[in-house]
Amino acid sequence: MERRYDLVVIGGGVAGYPVAVLAAKAGLNVLLVEERLLGGECTNYGCVPSKALLHYAGVAAEAARLGMSPSPSRSNAFAYASRVAGEERSGIEALLRAAGVEVARGRGLVEGCGGEACRVLVGDACVEAGRVVVATGSEPLWPGWAEKCDRVVDNRGLFERGLPEDAENVLVVGGGVAGVEVAQAMARLGASVTLVEAMERILPGLPAQASRIATRMLRRDGVEVVTGSPVQRITCRNGAPRACIRGECRDYDFVVLMLGRRPRRDAVLRVAGGEPRLDERNRVIGAERLYVVGDAAGPPLLAHKAIADALTAAADILGWGWWRRPRVYPTVVYTDPEIVVVDACSGEASVVRHYWGYAAPARIHGLPAQLVYAELGVREGRVCRVVLVGPGVSEAAGEASLIVERGLRLEEVAGVSHPHPSSNEALFEAVLAALGALYNRA
Amino acid sequence: MERRYDLVVIGGGVAGYPVAVLAAKAGLNVLLVEERLLGGECTNYGCVPSKALLHYAGVAAEAARLGMSPSPSRSNAFAYASRVAGEERSGIEALLRAAGVEVARGRGLVEGCGGEACRVLVGDACVEAGRVVVATGSEPLWPGWAEKCDRVVDNRGLFERGLPEDAENVLVVGGGVAGVEVAQAMARLGASVTLVEAMERILPGLPAQASRIATRMLRRDGVEVVTGSPVQRITCRNGAPRACIRGECRDYDFVVLMLGRRPRRDAVLRVAGGEPRLDERNRVIGAERLYVVGDAAGPPLLAHKAIADALTAAADILGWGWWRRPRVYPTVVYTDPEIVVVDACSGEASVVRHYWGYAAPARIHGLPAQLVYAELGVREGRVCRVVLVGPGVSEAAGEASLIVERGLRLEEVAGVSHPHPSSNEALFEAVLAALGALYNRA
Repeated sequence: MERRYDLVVIGGGVAGYPVAVLAAKAGLNVLLVEERLLGGECTNYGCVPSKALLHYAGVAAEAARLGMSPSPSRSNAFAYASRVAGEERSGIEALLRAAGVEVARGRGLVEGCGGEACRVLVGDACVEAGRVVVATGSEPLWPGWAEKCDRVVDNRGLFERGLPEDAENVLVVGGGVAGVEVAQAMARLGASVTLVEAMERILPGLPAQASRIATRMLRRDGVEVVTGSPVQRITCRNGAPRACIRGECRDYDFVVLMLGRRPRRDAVLRVAGGEPRLDERNRVIGAERLYVVGDAAGPPLLAHKAIADALTAAADILGWGWWRRPRVYPTVVYTDPEIVVVDACSGEASVVRHYWGYAAPARIHGLPAQLVYAELGVREGRVCRVVLVGPGVSEAAGEASLIVERGLRLEEVAGVSHPHPSSNEALFEAVLAALGALYNRA
Repeated sequence: MERRYDLVVIGGGVAGYPVAVLAAKAGLNVLLVEERLLGGECTNYGCVPSKALLHYAGVAAEAARLGMSPSPSRSNAFAYASRVAGEERSGIEALLRAAGVEVARGRGLVEGCGGEACRVLVGDACVEAGRVVVATGSEPLWPGWAEKCDRVVDNRGLFERGLPEDAENVLVVGGGVAGVEVAQAMARLGASVTLVEAMERILPGLPAQASRIATRMLRRDGVEVVTGSPVQRITCRNGAPRACIRGECRDYDFVVLMLGRRPRRDAVLRVAGGEPRLDERNRVIGAERLYVVGDAAGPPLLAHKAIADALTAAADILGWGWWRRPRVYPTVVYTDPEIVVVDACSGEASVVRHYWGYAAPARIHGLPAQLVYAELGVREGRVCRVVLVGPGVSEAAGEASLIVERGLRLEEVAGVSHPHPSSNEALFEAVLAALGALYNRA
């Protein structure tokens, strides 16, 4: 007889493991199936090691700026990123074990769902599941025009092999969030970096002002930013990369492709009879024992959206009446300075832009003033967009989300104390600016 | 004839200059009187240089931890703090000039207020003022049992002379926020630091768990923390400090007194006929042309409370109907990790404590897990207290304030996306823990 589980979760990344843990803690009999590494893309090749890399590079840059003559090394930087990712992964392993989740290594595939259960193929075995959560994530896009070799890598290859010590000229292809982050980190590790973006501006999905600020930030770190320029071809000759952009071909020592990601849904295609459609609880319409969550469920491809999906599925499975899924998600660029965007303005909104003038250099340790910025979108007196740029503003992303999620009025935010000194004050000051009460500008 | 102003502001610190700028921008004829340095205590000897000092020391410590062999120097650290303070001060000078505020150097004293105006003594001159805002701040307490000499200093002396290069054994007296910050910075600059506090625990005004965490944090940096021990005497012999604590006397190379501050209200005592009583708009009861704001108005002695006072006075003077002053203010300790407390729980509240387990080392770059912490106080389902500890949480102080200010329900915060990875998630996870939905703990 086939083994039966209350819940089978396919994929142990940030969308999958939380559902498994929560269900097991509630007493359900849970199997989690993982094909590669627990923690998934974010933990192993994405948000976690990239943030560690940016941290290392940022400390090196700041120590140098303060005259401390640090000796950073590329191999130490990547070893640190890898150690951080490994610690996070081990943490998830320990957590699953402690919660009593059974973990199977291999590929999971939903064969079919009936009135009582779904049948799931786990490697060669078949199990029965009262419910199935598909959290198979996404994978990096590798374009047809790029040859793969040791020195032409995507995000996975970058964190597996690291930036070669001898690589001087580095090309980053793709000016989205991940490309911008990697470009800054590698420039700060001493590479001569070119960032190339096909669209007219980097960070094309974010408000225009965020693009302009990010461009200035990267140029300050010595990155050459090239926009409106699709790459035509990348080849490797004897392992040496060559890239052709606008008909002009150049040799590089290292190429990183950051061209976005494609959701992986193979595990669910058969049972859904094609691309699945989901209801507001992340259930596959027509197969209500089956959930798709995280990157596999589609955009925005953000780790915290994956966590919200996981909680949405858990709420449905475990019967939490109180759960309300977020309407908005912050986009965070973990560079120095950091960039946060939360946007729910649709149609016309009045825009308030606030640069810190005199206050910025002092309060935020000497970064140029034009790199601290707060922008608000306001509709009928309610805040529908918050853009923040400044050191540490990722930690204010929850506040930005809270303001936009609840559509707070400007006066409601003005009456909230923000600590002095902090980047957090830029948000407060933008609200005061919108109300005509800004004291830090003549 | 006496010169007449619409508004005279006495004191150019963070409570005074905003009122002056806002009134001048609104077309009022404004005189600001400053006795010492524009920017006041916070800008020149308090929050601004201490944060810069902590930043320098923190970068040095983190670069060392990451194996970059940095070469920090005490004199560079204090020069940096002084430069940052100077930039902020120059910014305020430029802002006042641009806004058209007249600045007079000297002491201001309110002589009397009648039906039409107040009379203010500015140095030897006398002017008439439609309204007067007294923002004279506070000054460091210097106890009778401590002798003053070059190597026994308060916060002003510390930032004026810096930590001597040859000072090995340093005593910090007073374990409040400022003492804790200075103790960490000096330990990270290579001193052997003893922090002594008369009360049973450091940070005595904050929740007990914050004290315990701060003690652990300081010990990790090598600070000896001594509590329940009032200092009996500090003497200087040939400039060499000697401190007696619990009957035991020891020599130190440098002593910093961080014993709190006393509001300065001399400018208003005469007209108020003693200690002034204030209404909810910060007006002196019985003299409604006269406002007292910032530290001079009494506790909490926080820069952002001073700013809120300034806006409260400006709202009254300029007739802003929309302004509501905050009910709560965050206390922020800008150490590494940072500590934030926003507390409006009165009486019984249920307490939810959440330490990050496995996730902390990875997400926050290797700091020990027990140093990331979120605590909530909850009354009738509403959050009345938020305590946060972790790297960068000062930037989440606005969110903590917003939640407590509005008394949000747990479910309302749970439905707000917090970015992954961040310290900000600890707050989100504490809310999930309170709702029985925590996925990062078995």
